[in-house]
Amino acid sequence: MSDQKITIRELYSDPEKYAGQVITVDGWARQLRIQKKFGFIQINDGTYFKNLQIVVESEKSDNYDEIKSQNISTAFEITGELVLTPEAKQPFELKADVVKIIGESTSEYPLQPKSHTPEFLRSIAHLRPRSNLFSAVFRIRSEAAFAIHEFFNQQGFMYVHTPIITSSDAEGAGDMFRVTTLDPKNPPLTEDGDVDFSEDFFGKASFLTVSGQLNGEAFAQAYRNIYTFGPTFRSEHSNTQRHAAEFWMIEPEIAFAGINEAMDLAEAMLKHIINHTLDRCRAELEFLNETVYDGLIDRLEKVAKSDFAKVTYTDAIKILQESGKKFEFPVEWGSDLQTEHERYLTEVYFQGPVFVTDYPKDIKAFYMHINPDGKTVAAFDCLVPEIGEIIGGSQREERYDVLVNEIEARGMNIDNYDWYLDLRKYGSTPHAGYGLGFERIIMYLTGVSNIRDVIPFPRTTGNAEF
Amino acid sequence: MSDQKITIRELYSDPEKYAGQVITVDGWARQLRIQKKFGFIQINDGTYFKNLQIVVESEKSDNYDEIKSQNISTAFEITGELVLTPEAKQPFELKADVVKIIGESTSEYPLQPKSHTPEFLRSIAHLRPRSNLFSAVFRIRSEAAFAIHEFFNQQGFMYVHTPIITSSDAEGAGDMFRVTTLDPKNPPLTEDGDVDFSEDFFGKASFLTVSGQLNGEAFAQAYRNIYTFGPTFRSEHSNTQRHAAEFWMIEPEIAFAGINEAMDLAEAMLKHIINHTLDRCRAELEFLNETVYDGLIDRLEKVAKSDFAKVTYTDAIKILQESGKKFEFPVEWGSDLQTEHERYLTEVYFQGPVFVTDYPKDIKAFYMHINPDGKTVAAFDCLVPEIGEIIGGSQREERYDVLVNEIEARGMNIDNYDWYLDLRKYGSTPHAGYGLGFERIIMYLTGVSNIRDVIPFPRTTGNAEF
Repeated sequence: MSDQKITIRELYSDPEKYAGQVITVDGWARQLRIQKKFGFIQINDGTYFKNLQIVVESEKSDNYDEIKSQNISTAFEITGELVLTPEAKQPFELKADVVKIIGESTSEYPLQPKSHTPEFLRSIAHLRPRSNLFSAVFRIRSEAAFAIHEFFNQQGFMYVHTPIITSSDAEGAGDMFRVTTLDPKNPPLTEDGDVDFSEDFFGKASFLTVSGQLNGEAFAQAYRNIYTFGPTFRSEHSNTQRHAAEFWMIEPEIAFAGINEAMDLAEAMLKHIINHTLDRCRAELEFLNETVYDGLIDRLEKVAKSDFAKVTYTDAIKILQESGKKFEFPVEWGSDLQTEHERYLTEVYFQGPVFVTDYPKDIKAFYMHINPDGKTVAAFDCLVPEIGEIIGGSQREERYDVLVNEIEARGMNIDNYDWYLDLRKYGSTPHAGYGLGFERIIMYLTGVSNIRDVIPFPRTTGNAEF
Repeated sequence: MSDQKITIRELYSDPEKYAGQVITVDGWARQLRIQKKFGFIQINDGTYFKNLQIVVESEKSDNYDEIKSQNISTAFEITGELVLTPEAKQPFELKADVVKIIGESTSEYPLQPKSHTPEFLRSIAHLRPRSNLFSAVFRIRSEAAFAIHEFFNQQGFMYVHTPIITSSDAEGAGDMFRVTTLDPKNPPLTEDGDVDFSEDFFGKASFLTVSGQLNGEAFAQAYRNIYTFGPTFRSEHSNTQRHAAEFWMIEPEIAFAGINEAMDLAEAMLKHIINHTLDRCRAELEFLNETVYDGLIDRLEKVAKSDFAKVTYTDAIKILQESGKKFEFPVEWGSDLQTEHERYLTEVYFQGPVFVTDYPKDIKAFYMHINPDGKTVAAFDCLVPEIGEIIGGSQREERYDVLVNEIEARGMNIDNYDWYLDLRKYGSTPHAGYGLGFERIIMYLTGVSNIRDVIPFPRTTGNAEF
């Protein structure tokens, strides 16, 4: 056999198969070191994290001078013999016979092999996936997304595309972006001098969604088990490492089920995502373990094997109060847990993932199922070491009267919830669900600490480039 | 064994296994017919398209009077013996011992078993997935989405989340929605009296994306083979059966590849989606075949087995001119093909799917690779019988100078394309890709002719309800 086009992934998965054969590969130069008589080019073809070392010789290549003048990121097509090199750093190399230049690069190529600040790399978001770090991060993002679809599909869950543009503001979930086609300078006005949104594209004021949950609940009352996986938006000006204006969320919803079934589902889902990533992205994780977060693989393997603990919010408060530890924020029943509290619980006390359940009603959303005590709701947060909260969920209030009372007690406009209340009128069932911020799990899987570095083209205050 | 909780999907997949056993199911009543001594309830639990027939007897049920007063859509939990009924219409039924009412419905339940207009059903989009038609459509939508992820993942493609909010307007792709947090009535103004978008959330005017292609190209130059699958938006006021303001698109992009590889990929992808749906949604397709579109399954099976033809635009024009058929729109080299032309080609002449390639440059987008003739571009449309165009793609212009010329010749602002041009400066490779409108393939798979009826909560001019 000769001159077969092979991907670098194929080479790494079965080098013996190609040893001694003449093959053709193509890809981009990640490094070049070309001397007078011979040289080395590290080629990456995008199919695999690792490079293939190409050995070029001036005697064999007519165009050796041209090769010598190339820069990092030039695209090559190379034909040659694959030689196993068990004693070298790399397991094999390709001894080039023919080196074809597909597309040249220049010496101004911004991603030179030296240390760059994360800020600079964000400014070249169109090029940064060519670096080792981002190559690893975004492949893990891709595989984690697939793992999520695979997990829910295998379990018979329906994937629902809930709407991105919405006219209902899911109360309390955060500030929203307006979506409009009105003239921004001279919008039409009503007789009262207000902006006349009846003239806008959708005939009323419209926004970008903050959550697909309410729509998802409608589908769960038809299909039993559903999930959403789509972009969601927040227009808060929070310039932190953990907030982006645009991010992706996974929101499963299960009918004929309560908080325990939802927690079991969350635990199984997290383990599936982790195991899939460990299985499919080993080279990427090893790189991240070495360069970004020492102990990353160990952390993931531990969580994948652990049984998640459960503790009520009320007991968690007691544990914190009796810990003898001084916290910055006070610990008292009725206040939300702060990150320092969450981390104490998961890292020190339980030393592993833990579900905290049954939070005080007043610090949680209107749609959560009120427990028999009248003070707490059947809500849960899943806390993991070194991150804190990674998932938040609840049983939903399935009782029409209780839900109406709660909406009114909170001073919300009940007219906005007519269709949502319908779900409690026509065969309501106990049901539950949760939300997983996709970027948060990617940060957990990669050890990367800034959300801007796990999103291909991040959108934050003041930034919608590319 | 007794009292195991079983899904209706499990029952249909292996009735023998449960025959004679006492099992528990839950679900919603799709039909009730309760007489004095006995009655029948058709239960659907959301896991499967078909219902389970429950037989209730007054002698066995203490709460028979309560059961009798129930309405369609009441949620039940029922325990009883599964009995095979090979001579009846349904293959088995459940003889109820215990009938528990989980959530009542009312006689005002809007989805009564009678004929409803599509318009009415859209007005109850939160309930319509409980009908047979929409139950079938949205399960097919879910399975088709999974089939797409599965197809690309199996082939090593990276899934990329391209941004939804963008500050670059992908020239020519359509009208865009503005995304803003400015005060709609009193926006900040510049000294010149224009709206000061530097004060807006992203520091400049921002919009909802019309395509992820340009961003996808950046990732293809790092990962070789990538795809996007996410929502896209058009703010055109086109009130047709085929246009929505919000819809989902799949956009693969492949490097070191040209138009032929892209067409091969499109053909393989379409066949994979169809085969997956035929395999997983048989009951749904049979229902649609009977009630919505006679010949649906036959159509899908034929396409899945056919070899897609290829014809250049220039030859297609000749075929149309020599057809002897009178078309409403004139056929001449340089004009775009109309639906009537596309349908003649795929239905009459080729009698199957066909790729039309190499369109005149002037009727296609700026980023398409210009052929050696200087007049045509390496573009393709995939036409299928009864629909016309289902996919549009092209090789992209990989040559820096040619691309710059084209942008300038079209009077576009070159400054908006600096990062896109970078991709042609640092190791450019021949690359190609295409876009598939997800709703269009769902319409094809289901036979449903209005896009509003294949989107869970459709967004069109004047409509962003739910």
